[in-house]
Amino acid sequence: MVELIEKIESEIGPIEVACYNAAIGAAHSIMEFPAEDYERVWRINTFGAFLMGREVSKRMNERGRGTILFTGATSALRGRSHLAAFAGSKHALRALTESMARELFPKNIHVAHIIIDGPIDTPLIRRTMPAVFEERPADGVLNPDDIAETYWNIHCQPRSAWLSETTLRPWLEPW
Amino acid sequence: MVELIEKIESEIGPIEVACYNAAIGAAHSIMEFPAEDYERVWRINTFGAFLMGREVSKRMNERGRGTILFTGATSALRGRSHLAAFAGSKHALRALTESMARELFPKNIHVAHIIIDGPIDTPLIRRTMPAVFEERPADGVLNPDDIAETYWNIHCQPRSAWLSETTLRPWLEPW
Amino acid sequence: MVELIEKIESEIGPIEVACYNAAIGAAHSIMEFPAEDYERVWRINTFGAFLMGREVSKRMNERGRGTILFTGATSALRGRSHLAAFAGSKHALRALTESMARELFPKNIHVAHIIIDGPIDTPLIRRTMPAVFEERPADGVLNPDDIAETYWNIHCQPRSAWLSETTLRPWLEPW
Amino acid sequence: MVELIEKIESEIGPIEVACYNAAIGAAHSIMEFPAEDYERVWRINTFGAFLMGREVSKRMNERGRGTILFTGATSALRGRSHLAAFAGSKHALRALTESMARELFPKNIHVAHIIIDGPIDTPLIRRTMPAVFEERPADGVLNPDDIAETYWNIHCQPRSAWLSETTLRPWLEPW
Repeated sequence: MVELIEKIESEIGPIEVACYNAAIGAAHSIMEFPAEDYERVWRINTFGAFLMGREVSKRMNERGRGTILFTGATSALRGRSHLAAFAGSKHALRALTESMARELFPKNIHVAHIIIDGPIDTPLIRRTMPAVFEERPADGVLNPDDIAETYWNIHCQPRSAWLSETTLRPWLEPW
Repeated sequence: MVELIEKIESEIGPIEVACYNAAIGAAHSIMEFPAEDYERVWRINTFGAFLMGREVSKRMNERGRGTILFTGATSALRGRSHLAAFAGSKHALRALTESMARELFPKNIHVAHIIIDGPIDTPLIRRTMPAVFEERPADGVLNPDDIAETYWNIHCQPRSAWLSETTLRPWLEPW
Repeated sequence: MVELIEKIESEIGPIEVACYNAAIGAAHSIMEFPAEDYERVWRINTFGAFLMGREVSKRMNERGRGTILFTGATSALRGRSHLAAFAGSKHALRALTESMARELFPKNIHVAHIIIDGPIDTPLIRRTMPAVFEERPADGVLNPDDIAETYWNIHCQPRSAWLSETTLRPWLEPW
Repeated sequence: MVELIEKIESEIGPIEVACYNAAIGAAHSIMEFPAEDYERVWRINTFGAFLMGREVSKRMNERGRGTILFTGATSALRGRSHLAAFAGSKHALRALTESMARELFPKNIHVAHIIIDGPIDTPLIRRTMPAVFEERPADGVLNPDDIAETYWNIHCQPRSAWLSETTLRPWLEPW
């Protein structure tokens, strides 16, 4: 991640907006949860976000501006049976985001945590949750372009009224 | 409120977006809190919002669309010494919003709760908190137009990715 | 309530521990929620608690000690479709409790909010939820004596380590 | 940790109650937070708790009973500037606890998360926060025996009314 950010900044240009979406899951009873799985989920969902946030924020701070967005999940707000690793990683990501926002808002860097609550319309999720896609109309699941629209609006917010967290879900999502 | 909504709908036109901002405060030790004050705060901050939400949502439901926005406060999330009435009224407003969103999202009515955390740049607040306005630059307090921009963006969100709650604060706000 | 507390204090004796359990519900679509029902739920679940808390805490403060316990519900933490009144009243009760605890802890008055998440074994609930009582063993629903045991332990906590909120649920409760 | 639990069970006896208190901190700006520090905090505060929880719960499940208690911190509930690692580790610990409680309550294993909000009266904290210990009376900071009393009461709760989370703070703690 350290090299990646360095490469983007030197070869492409200064990062104005950074998003961290990477996430994996793992579902096991706590009584037989492989330690490797628990650690791997943390490493991708949390530690990678930490490294990205650190590398990007220090460069943004030199330039005096920037936006950093982290994609969260409902598991950022509650634990669930068999999901100790995923929930832990997303809780920790939320703590990272809030800690960063409290430090970086006054440095003119906008940090926000967007919780996605519902199935996103991607090939992977279409395969894993076919019933949902059959039952609901096209806009009954999260459309990636619509998510991006809100991310863009967050980036465009004037700094007198910044948001640091919100949740997006489809109108048909039960919650 | 019932007559007001009826009047607006019949004389001006169908309400597409409704906002409820009305709020008063009252600060007393719990040990000598006047019951009239406790009730008045609830009546304006919560009960008025309930009546507005009921009257507007039933008309929007007949038309199959609409947006209803409620302005909250940090006191929606925690109680504070001497602020039992205000905190209670804003907690209850948040519960109203979430209850409405869960019922009305599937009816294509977008309901959201926007927590304002920080001083808004209005004549009243300029008078009551002069020090803050001297210490901070103009965009260090919440600008009403910037708040309105986010309200507008919430109204424009496509329904595949609706938010139901967020918090707005100035980049310089300590939290 | 004002007279009731006065009567208890003058005829029976000083109140060392006060509990507020009174609660009613009301389930309606927000679009046709009777205003009288919305208000009645608030009056019993919240306003009565406020009056009790005020009357008792001022007397406890004169004596320099006391415990005040409020019984909450899961609806203190989230809104639900058709339950705007109940959820609002329980959210407001939670705000009352936290406001009181922040003011009264330093006056040696212990204030706590106990959220009950699950069916209590009472004649009323046995009648309204018979299936639950058939499916579960006797200790699969909340036993009033067991709830009381925790209330008693809260009262007995030494003041170096006071709790202000907790949730009780049966081991078999899905959550 | 795996060997430790094995050794205790085989040499001393079956574990009826397990507590996980281990915790370290690290305070750095996010912009220069050493990755080793971020990982070490997670490893001790979260990963160790996960391993302990796994090893103990599978043995308790064979015996059909047990209590597992995790010590949390206010940082389980909010992020803070410079405390991304500590807050993340404690948020994740909270998620672990809730995930375990939801799975293990129905197996007659009581899991709880106790948030400690305030200075504990230990030699280390006396050295690092001398002013607090001068200003407050002896019971104005958390007494370890008083904390233990609540842990014991949690273990003794009958299973019809189990708590899964609470917060302990001194009566004089500002919050």
